[in-house]
Amino acid sequence: MALAVGMRVLTRALHRPWARGLRVAPGRTGPAAGGGDGVRCFGSPRVLVEPDPAAGVAVVKMRNPPVNSFSLEFLTELLISLEKLENDKTFRGIILTSDHPGIFSAGLDLTEMCGRKPEHYMEYWKAVQEMWLRFYLSNLVVIAAINGVSPAGGCLLSLTCDYRVLANNPKYTIGLNETRLGIVAPFWFKDMMVNTVGYRTAERALQLGLLFPPAEALRVGVVDQVVPEDQVQSTARSVMAQWLAIPVCRPGVQNQGLGRAVLSPEALGEAPSCLIQPLAAPDDPWPLDASRQSAFPPRGLPACLCLQAPLFLSLVRTLVGFGVHPKSKRISS
Amino acid sequence: MALAVGMRVLTRALHRPWARGLRVAPGRTGPAAGGGDGVRCFGSPRVLVEPDPAAGVAVVKMRNPPVNSFSLEFLTELLISLEKLENDKTFRGIILTSDHPGIFSAGLDLTEMCGRKPEHYMEYWKAVQEMWLRFYLSNLVVIAAINGVSPAGGCLLSLTCDYRVLANNPKYTIGLNETRLGIVAPFWFKDMMVNTVGYRTAERALQLGLLFPPAEALRVGVVDQVVPEDQVQSTARSVMAQWLAIPVCRPGVQNQGLGRAVLSPEALGEAPSCLIQPLAAPDDPWPLDASRQSAFPPRGLPACLCLQAPLFLSLVRTLVGFGVHPKSKRISS
Amino acid sequence: MALAVGMRVLTRALHRPWARGLRVAPGRTGPAAGGGDGVRCFGSPRVLVEPDPAAGVAVVKMRNPPVNSFSLEFLTELLISLEKLENDKTFRGIILTSDHPGIFSAGLDLTEMCGRKPEHYMEYWKAVQEMWLRFYLSNLVVIAAINGVSPAGGCLLSLTCDYRVLANNPKYTIGLNETRLGIVAPFWFKDMMVNTVGYRTAERALQLGLLFPPAEALRVGVVDQVVPEDQVQSTARSVMAQWLAIPVCRPGVQNQGLGRAVLSPEALGEAPSCLIQPLAAPDDPWPLDASRQSAFPPRGLPACLCLQAPLFLSLVRTLVGFGVHPKSKRISS
Repeated sequence: MALAVGMRVLTRALHRPWARGLRVAPGRTGPAAGGGDGVRCFGSPRVLVEPDPAAGVAVVKMRNPPVNSFSLEFLTELLISLEKLENDKTFRGIILTSDHPGIFSAGLDLTEMCGRKPEHYMEYWKAVQEMWLRFYLSNLVVIAAINGVSPAGGCLLSLTCDYRVLANNPKYTIGLNETRLGIVAPFWFKDMMVNTVGYRTAERALQLGLLFPPAEALRVGVVDQVVPEDQVQSTARSVMAQWLAIPVCRPGVQNQGLGRAVLSPEALGEAPSCLIQPLAAPDDPWPLDASRQSAFPPRGLPACLCLQAPLFLSLVRTLVGFGVHPKSKRISS
Repeated sequence: MALAVGMRVLTRALHRPWARGLRVAPGRTGPAAGGGDGVRCFGSPRVLVEPDPAAGVAVVKMRNPPVNSFSLEFLTELLISLEKLENDKTFRGIILTSDHPGIFSAGLDLTEMCGRKPEHYMEYWKAVQEMWLRFYLSNLVVIAAINGVSPAGGCLLSLTCDYRVLANNPKYTIGLNETRLGIVAPFWFKDMMVNTVGYRTAERALQLGLLFPPAEALRVGVVDQVVPEDQVQSTARSVMAQWLAIPVCRPGVQNQGLGRAVLSPEALGEAPSCLIQPLAAPDDPWPLDASRQSAFPPRGLPACLCLQAPLFLSLVRTLVGFGVHPKSKRISS
Repeated sequence: MALAVGMRVLTRALHRPWARGLRVAPGRTGPAAGGGDGVRCFGSPRVLVEPDPAAGVAVVKMRNPPVNSFSLEFLTELLISLEKLENDKTFRGIILTSDHPGIFSAGLDLTEMCGRKPEHYMEYWKAVQEMWLRFYLSNLVVIAAINGVSPAGGCLLSLTCDYRVLANNPKYTIGLNETRLGIVAPFWFKDMMVNTVGYRTAERALQLGLLFPPAEALRVGVVDQVVPEDQVQSTARSVMAQWLAIPVCRPGVQNQGLGRAVLSPEALGEAPSCLIQPLAAPDDPWPLDASRQSAFPPRGLPACLCLQAPLFLSLVRTLVGFGVHPKSKRISS
């Protein structure tokens, strides 16, 4: 609780014009400013990371002014931050939020998609897809603390998270509104929406480019929870605690074939080659194969789980009030 | 509004025995009768088309007495009407309804499936599938104004539409009730229902052959809206206006990989060859490949959209109250 | 109704310690005890079958003390019972329940997955998958009368049924709680849950290992109906009557490509070879190919349905109040 209060203080301290904020933290890997409560922050000019090693959680704050749009530089820095946290065994969860309440993220940076060379488009789209895949398949629990509007790619980013908490401000709409801008969302944007709100709702939402205000977003299921604006961060922390209490929620095991196995081989079969190639490269083995394997234990459970079997059985026994030992029971029957 | 009133007058004027109506409009491509308000109608004996060029909308009224069942002739005429409208750049949307309130469509004509030669069955099923695919993949916005019962194939036809408005009459049930007739619905009927109401609801609805009355149909999501019977057409017009306000909703772009990309390669892989062959023929290129490509713009956005980029950014800027120019901002950071 | 009362009497008679119950019915194929009302029961030590030939229904009661966990012996006996009922033309439906109210089933027996030889794991997992596939693809209507807690594999078993009735006892939770035990559920567990409650709900339920109490289970859709504890069996009987009234609900036709066609070729493509092999073996032809074929009648309807065509048309005619004969009408037009 004290932590949450400390965070709110920190958040308030950061309510300042972007330019100033950026001037204070110019270095890419240097420590970020704003931490007046002893929390050591790191990150990059466009991504502020506030680690809480004791809790195993890091708050990742996007700060790419003015609207946290996905420029190539921003995506690169965001992915580097994610990778650092994933490689650090200290961390088991990330809370993804905006450093500037009011805007979560406006999504793709259209200036990256106009008047550039073909190579640039390839590089840019690869970065967008990396963002999608890396967050979606991360072995860290990722909770989105959505503290601002979240259209288009901003919505996609929040959909890659395990759980979405939205601030109850009618201005904070969320949705894939590409068609309103004359664009058709890529099919994997659509797939993420379909998996979150169901096919029919997604179909209509994408065709009409609907942006849902909080109450509506909760009703259709774009977000999981709507809370008062000043409780977004603390709620995200509470939710994170729930997730981290699950034994499987630890780096390397979390999400293995679990609920996130959306990325079926068929789905990937539809993906453009620029998406598949980098992941299938020998030096970057495709993580999904391994996870699918592990989801199906044809060779018995790992030893650590065998140890849990008696615990499991005794739990069940307690639950139903039987006094007999299940194992001997089964054998004697 | 005046238009909607005019349409209701027209609808009332058509409340006459089928035989007489058919006698008045015998020619296949000749003008249809009943237009006393200056609207020039065309169509065929079994399909009445009431164009509204100013709005870019055509009302397509099924009139295959007595129950608008899908005879081969009816399907052929319906598909020809659709194709004509798609080829006419005047039109961007279709309102599909029944010329005879009380029956939307009873669906497949069982007499086409008994005591005929194998070639006939092939031809008939091909026509049914063409109907499904052509409406489902149409580049026109298709709104179903369901003004009567809509069992089995009638339900399928309405499911191919982008939006379903159902008249609030307890007699006007809708659903895939094939099992009640001792038939199992083809898997693509099922797929359409699954995409509309979700898997579990569809599973039970198909197994028990449920026909949903309006309130229930709205609750499970078979239809999108239920309105008083005399407001079905006007509501369909209002909804159409909403859709046509979307920039992407124009012939040739609408539905490209958007929400309708249900027809995945896998789904088609399951389809019988008689379905795939005609579409894959060289003189009729498979439209889905193209649409999927365009859904993923790996070579940058088209020029027309690049022009919209500053507009887009200024919109976002206005939305969040920033005074700085986002582009210069990003570069300076 | 008398039947239902008789069943409740029988159920009460069986409220006795497991050991005694087992001692009374030691033989594998001999008649089971407890039937004081003239109903001839059969089954095996771990599976009690109470046939009601007049209704075409058999109640299958699991009795593998103490928690109906899926030991290899239990699974084998359960599958044998199912096969016997499927091969007996008398039966069209099964009500699956627990012989010991309080526990539906605790699911997989972890002792089967620890400290055994690889061959044992293969054999065990094959049996688990056989259970899943045989119940899911059964040509009998299977209704789950869930009269106790149903975690993990117990939940899976209930999900394979056509309909789930849960006793309204807050202790009777249901869900795939594998992650709470440090295990990741196999992907086909997940697929069953996704098809039942939708993707997003399943995703969160599996990640957090949620066990839903009755009200919640009904809300999210894990079960179809929640009734007072003493009405579970009678409700299951009423629901069964509804299902058996459907003409297609008969052995050999039920479920053919209907709502259960979840097992798409793609889904099976993901399955481990030990799952596919037994089913694809020549002496055990894969039942799904046949069912998919029959779901699409490219060669016209079977003769029996052609006979129904006039009936069908007259039904529709009656429904909408037309006096004309539809067939002659269509030809004359």
